[in-house]
Amino acid sequence: MKKLLAAAAAALFCVSPAAADVLVDNVNGYTLTSEGRLVRFAALLVGDDGKVERLFQRGDKKPERTRYRYDAQGKTLIPGLIDGHGHVMGLGFTALQLDLSDTGSLQEAQAKIAAYAAANPSPRWIVGRGWNQERWGLGRFPTAADIDAVVKDRPVWLERIDGHAGWANSLAMKEAGITAKTAAPGGGKIEKGAGGQPSGIFVDAASELVAKVVPAPLPRIRDQALAKAQELMLSNGLTATADMGTSPEDWLTIRRAGDAGRLKVRIMSYGAGIESILAVAGTGPTPWLYDGRLRMGGVKLYRDGALGSRGAWLKHPYKDSPRESGLGFLRDDEIRNLMSRAAMDGFQVAVHAIGDAANAQLLGAIEELADTYKGDRRWRVEHAQIVDPADLPRFARFGTIASMQPVHEASDWRMAEARMGMERLGGAYAWKTMLANKVPLAFGSDFPVESPNPFHGLAVAISREDAQGQPPGGWMPEQRLNLEQALRAFTLGAAYAGFAEDRIGTLERGKYADFVLIDRDIFADLSPAAIRETKVLQTWIAGTRAWPN
Amino acid sequence: MKKLLAAAAAALFCVSPAAADVLVDNVNGYTLTSEGRLVRFAALLVGDDGKVERLFQRGDKKPERTRYRYDAQGKTLIPGLIDGHGHVMGLGFTALQLDLSDTGSLQEAQAKIAAYAAANPSPRWIVGRGWNQERWGLGRFPTAADIDAVVKDRPVWLERIDGHAGWANSLAMKEAGITAKTAAPGGGKIEKGAGGQPSGIFVDAASELVAKVVPAPLPRIRDQALAKAQELMLSNGLTATADMGTSPEDWLTIRRAGDAGRLKVRIMSYGAGIESILAVAGTGPTPWLYDGRLRMGGVKLYRDGALGSRGAWLKHPYKDSPRESGLGFLRDDEIRNLMSRAAMDGFQVAVHAIGDAANAQLLGAIEELADTYKGDRRWRVEHAQIVDPADLPRFARFGTIASMQPVHEASDWRMAEARMGMERLGGAYAWKTMLANKVPLAFGSDFPVESPNPFHGLAVAISREDAQGQPPGGWMPEQRLNLEQALRAFTLGAAYAGFAEDRIGTLERGKYADFVLIDRDIFADLSPAAIRETKVLQTWIAGTRAWPN
Repeated sequence: MKKLLAAAAAALFCVSPAAADVLVDNVNGYTLTSEGRLVRFAALLVGDDGKVERLFQRGDKKPERTRYRYDAQGKTLIPGLIDGHGHVMGLGFTALQLDLSDTGSLQEAQAKIAAYAAANPSPRWIVGRGWNQERWGLGRFPTAADIDAVVKDRPVWLERIDGHAGWANSLAMKEAGITAKTAAPGGGKIEKGAGGQPSGIFVDAASELVAKVVPAPLPRIRDQALAKAQELMLSNGLTATADMGTSPEDWLTIRRAGDAGRLKVRIMSYGAGIESILAVAGTGPTPWLYDGRLRMGGVKLYRDGALGSRGAWLKHPYKDSPRESGLGFLRDDEIRNLMSRAAMDGFQVAVHAIGDAANAQLLGAIEELADTYKGDRRWRVEHAQIVDPADLPRFARFGTIASMQPVHEASDWRMAEARMGMERLGGAYAWKTMLANKVPLAFGSDFPVESPNPFHGLAVAISREDAQGQPPGGWMPEQRLNLEQALRAFTLGAAYAGFAEDRIGTLERGKYADFVLIDRDIFADLSPAAIRETKVLQTWIAGTRAWPN
Repeated sequence: MKKLLAAAAAALFCVSPAAADVLVDNVNGYTLTSEGRLVRFAALLVGDDGKVERLFQRGDKKPERTRYRYDAQGKTLIPGLIDGHGHVMGLGFTALQLDLSDTGSLQEAQAKIAAYAAANPSPRWIVGRGWNQERWGLGRFPTAADIDAVVKDRPVWLERIDGHAGWANSLAMKEAGITAKTAAPGGGKIEKGAGGQPSGIFVDAASELVAKVVPAPLPRIRDQALAKAQELMLSNGLTATADMGTSPEDWLTIRRAGDAGRLKVRIMSYGAGIESILAVAGTGPTPWLYDGRLRMGGVKLYRDGALGSRGAWLKHPYKDSPRESGLGFLRDDEIRNLMSRAAMDGFQVAVHAIGDAANAQLLGAIEELADTYKGDRRWRVEHAQIVDPADLPRFARFGTIASMQPVHEASDWRMAEARMGMERLGGAYAWKTMLANKVPLAFGSDFPVESPNPFHGLAVAISREDAQGQPPGGWMPEQRLNLEQALRAFTLGAAYAGFAEDRIGTLERGKYADFVLIDRDIFADLSPAAIRETKVLQTWIAGTRAWPN
């Protein structure tokens, strides 16, 4: 009798937690599998651990008793999107700061600066970002005088859209002690105006001359910024992201959220330089923390700057500025030493490389280091925008990951032509070639440089057209992907790039139930405009609705 | 039948986790209660959550089935000791570094420096601490030349036993760019030798001039230091400590241990200054992390220096150096602003105050702030060593905690007499008066300034004699405590001082089962020598043996 009772008890009660599952029913579900097949399903069962227990096809027998059953009423469900390259705190700060990214002219930017100053009497510094003189059609960099004309009694410091240049007013330069005699640091440039006076523009490493005197944000603002970033991610359907350049301050902010149960999205953190990984993670990657929501697994390094500010390091001079060929921040041995320093402790290495010279040298560094650091290293090239066609096959040799941002192509193609000419762009934004070469491809947005909305990226990926449909038929259309390929790079590919493909990226048994419900069947209408306009209805993480809440 | 089965199941199985408890049986147990009674017990039952379920008296019926029963064979069990004022990373670093605390003369110190240099060819800098020219009977501070005589080809930097002065050799001063022209910062002093040359001694804030060029320890060394500190705490019977001055780097190190399951002791963390609490905890105390093993609940501030280096701020000049009256680091408004900045976000405030002037001004600041920051604030005065008898009653007014270190009295009494004369020491190390005034008293060791061994502190607390039994009968023996009072300050008092008395400090139902088994019944033989020599046999935390392991 005792045995019988035991068996009965086990059956009725102690195993009954299985009845505490969540059934997401009546969905038009899509997921890739780990093997890369696209499969459909009609319902999804989530276990107590927030992981997928199984998918059901229409007509499959579903469990009768679950803790919670959500009827999706036929809506389309896809895996949570994963951004392979974002800046989490930057996204939040941008949303809180003066945002010039939607300004179409210098005059519009000036008006917005004046209005922001009036609306925000404190703190004293006015900090913002998002300007793009290319978009303004200004034909020159803006100057300190352009800001002084609207705000001169408070210091103003505005980052360029790509983060690779800063624009100061005269008071900001004065507080930073910048004079005509100030020398630009290596890897940076101070633009000069009439009489050799600094014009107000500080490129790449020179930005630090001003940035260092901007008061650091208070923790309250940092916490707000992270909350805002999470809201923006979730409302755009992102359930996870790589954070490309986590400082110790960023890390402490994210941990505060984690400790307080306010961390919802999953963050694959790459420390901002060697110092950050040493300070935070110490002698090797951290474990996954907060139920798989945070891990510092690697380091983010820089090989060059960006194309817009002519910081991208090119093999030949810029076509539209023949005395420049960009900024190679580090010598060969320097970048190798940094990569080696991280790799020896088991950290993954992700290196920003935009210009063809930067990409070539980085590939050379990987080839050299791969001999020493064997095993599954997943070296990451971030951006890999302008690659010499001769270098494209080198990506595949050591499993190097191409971490690319489709929207950059749409934003940059005109500028890229101007900077380099078509004849040098044969390996530019070459997603399809990467796949053809069997290079693991991860997609992202580089938010806040671009919008975090992954549907913009998917639309560009399948069209090579920008939001205005330009150029019609796509720029270098042979590099277009199909939607399945693009979605894979924005889910499983981005997860793989972060050593997380065993837990996220697809909806399969044993992986976290991270998914989004969207307002249309993206596989039914494959027009770029339709995909771009996709609205996220709900975002779930680990089987719980995280947005809206 | 279904109902019957359910009931049976509940009884037999689903509640059966209670059978997963730990019984620590056959002990000679002592604990205080929250009300302050000393009670005895013969066995202790620990629940699955690591907390005390109940105590058993001899003859009480004990549960028959437990997951684990440990037979203590009659050994004495007392609550885990809690250090109200320690420096966790400092304890670990000290153990890894050159330790001069056991040297009895300058010659002995020189020999030890030379031996350490020979035994540790890397890293280049030789860093250590623990010297005490008072103990050496040197009659002067040591000089750079004293180190140069044994090591001159590597920079050497040695902190004084109390952390309030540093001793450099000539190469260290050269690398720090120290010359005869170098000015001491406010709150600091550079000792000068013949011809106005810096002698090699840097007092209080001036230490930073050299300390800032000492290479920061690598994370591997930090992790080793924390492991060492935990081992030293556990082997001395400490299960918890206040960490007085946690830097962000310290915090990240402790979190690495927590994340990896290597954090055993409980740490009540006080951030090193406002910047640390803002960077780490942000807008208020952190939650308890890692099952009650870590929380940053407050800030550590400094009001003055130490007596040994004449940094303690006195109301009247030093008797043995009439032109000095110590270092008041901050003006009244400055310390109040700092305290206010922390208190407004709900952080507890702990302020170092050693001299009578420092204590008086700090009490004034508390009196002013207590008006604004109401509720259970538990303002802490750290050390409270030399208090003007007129100021002693002020402690009790706003529930201010006296966080004191008994061993300091034994180490300092001769020096205190020399520095101030007996006529000014009526309120020195006045533990008994604090208790008589109903001031909450927390005891600690200030490790690594003193040994972390709390039995040394207990022995001094009941005797006012040092390890050599000096002075016989005790210095100002009217301030002796009885053992129960001393033990309370080292357990419940230290827990209360850290807002942790609801979870640690006594062995009562619902509190963590943190305890130690020791080699004698400290209540049976109350001689100071017997208590001082107590050996810890085992240290348990949350019902699990943490040491030895």
